Amino acid sequence: MSLIVVGSMAFDAIETPFGKSDKIVGGAATYIAWSASNFCKPVKQISVVGGDFPDAQLKALTARGVDLEGVQIKKNEKSFFWSGKYHLDMNTRDTLETQLNVLADFQPVVPDSYQGAEFLMLGNLLPAVQLSVIKQLKQRPKLIVLDTMNFWMDTAMEDLQKVLREVDVLLVNDSEARQLSGEFSMVKAANKIMKMGPKYLIIKKGEHGALLFHENLVFFAPALPLEDVFDPTGAGDTFAGGFIGHIAKTKDVSFENMKTAIIVGSAMASFCVEKFGTERLTEITKEDIAERIQEFVQLVNFDIALV
Amino acid sequence: MSLIVVGSMAFDAIETPFGKSDKIVGGAATYIAWSASNFCKPVKQISVVGGDFPDAQLKALTARGVDLEGVQIKKNEKSFFWSGKYHLDMNTRDTLETQLNVLADFQPVVPDSYQGAEFLMLGNLLPAVQLSVIKQLKQRPKLIVLDTMNFWMDTAMEDLQKVLREVDVLLVNDSEARQLSGEFSMVKAANKIMKMGPKYLIIKKGEHGALLFHENLVFFAPALPLEDVFDPTGAGDTFAGGFIGHIAKTKDVSFENMKTAIIVGSAMASFCVEKFGTERLTEITKEDIAERIQEFVQLVNFDIALV
Repeated sequence: MSLIVVGSMAFDAIETPFGKSDKIVGGAATYIAWSASNFCKPVKQISVVGGDFPDAQLKALTARGVDLEGVQIKKNEKSFFWSGKYHLDMNTRDTLETQLNVLADFQPVVPDSYQGAEFLMLGNLLPAVQLSVIKQLKQRPKLIVLDTMNFWMDTAMEDLQKVLREVDVLLVNDSEARQLSGEFSMVKAANKIMKMGPKYLIIKKGEHGALLFHENLVFFAPALPLEDVFDPTGAGDTFAGGFIGHIAKTKDVSFENMKTAIIVGSAMASFCVEKFGTERLTEITKEDIAERIQEFVQLVNFDIALV
Repeated sequence: MSLIVVGSMAFDAIETPFGKSDKIVGGAATYIAWSASNFCKPVKQISVVGGDFPDAQLKALTARGVDLEGVQIKKNEKSFFWSGKYHLDMNTRDTLETQLNVLADFQPVVPDSYQGAEFLMLGNLLPAVQLSVIKQLKQRPKLIVLDTMNFWMDTAMEDLQKVLREVDVLLVNDSEARQLSGEFSMVKAANKIMKMGPKYLIIKKGEHGALLFHENLVFFAPALPLEDVFDPTGAGDTFAGGFIGHIAKTKDVSFENMKTAIIVGSAMASFCVEKFGTERLTEITKEDIAERIQEFVQLVNFDIALV
């Protein structure tokens, strides 16, 4: 089981209605790696950081089974920085500040030792960078999963369309699915998007769960109703990490197994939001995860024999 | 299996982004009766209509197994009328006009033949009217289900609190649960509301499904992803009708059976929105319903053995 993860490793400063963080470690690939490494090792990471990125964080990831050979460290530059403020509903947020820094001219390089990987998770990033990684791989992975966001639909739609044609699974949220397709109905949006390249589409709806579409099939996974959502930052990336981690572990890319992978991703995301940043992800055990997945079984299980 | 249904029988005029209806038959109790009568007969209806209410509609309900002895017909008055316009998301709407007419001084009378009913469904209506029906029953039903709305929280909170203390199951939507509890988190809202009287709480989230809370248990039922939602009017009432219809049919008020009842309610609601008003509900067969329920099984079913 070999998995390549591409994405940002960065700093975030987060304000929620319940608190405010200092500048803490974040970034799509950081969350994905913490999440996926519960299921699959090594995670072969591709990213870029500045000299300011904490060495302790890199060591913690290495200890976790994350291969950092593909992570460029630009000693004299600064890491990507994002700061944002969440609204009360925690589903919407305002960006307060974005400093691209090392991401401004990021040229990913796939190390030789990463070649032949069976699974590729392209975390949210410039579509041209995502495409560059695909092009560098000598052998097409068994499954390529792409995460993206509305920002790239606004600013790099042509590149995004190119990368869409190369991937198997697309992850977006509901408003992004509407923007990308121009359709309001999720079913119509899914049908249009699946004509753009990806044969599988996952629509993330935050506290309202997630939908998986493939051909004329559809699967729905709920989000766990939580007493408090402390910080939703990274929940989507953590979901992606659990999803691809489970697929890489089982090496099974069937629709049936993707359903289970979505439950695994949802369980991982439910941990992520319980504390600021990656903190909760660094604490949880295999037993915590197994218990959480059982809660999802309980949440949706009903006796059809009674009907 | 004996079920009393209380609520409005009325006229609606509906505008959606996809069309506009004439003045058509609606009202909470109308939708509930059409829905519940698939599972349980007779449905003992309590309501009030004016001389303008179509005789054909009353005959259709009678033919369906709905007992209209408790429906007052005020020959010289007009039926309740509501007109509204839905926004694009179909989850929010503006009321254009409300004419209370016969509802303005409705005094429900429970016929002797209704006494001893095991199940009571109180559709959305003035809380004082709902309470009056409970008080007239000589024997407390096995299960009392209450539907209500934000309007009564704004205008009749004291009466609503009284009726809440008398019921077993409360049905509200997510924003109403927040308003009633003063809590944003659904889990916290549920815990507060369950201290107000109802031991079971169902939170309807429209296209995002429904949650059932009881003590520390929670169950989630998705809504079926539909290509088009044509008219959401009455979907909540139709859900309630399917829920109480299944409970009345099985006479089982356990949490387990309520989960199944919520799936039945969700399946019924998914038909309701496919056409204007009650039209779709009058067409569907037992086979259609069984098939739709299977779609819900497929929608949420996953193989936990794979984890």
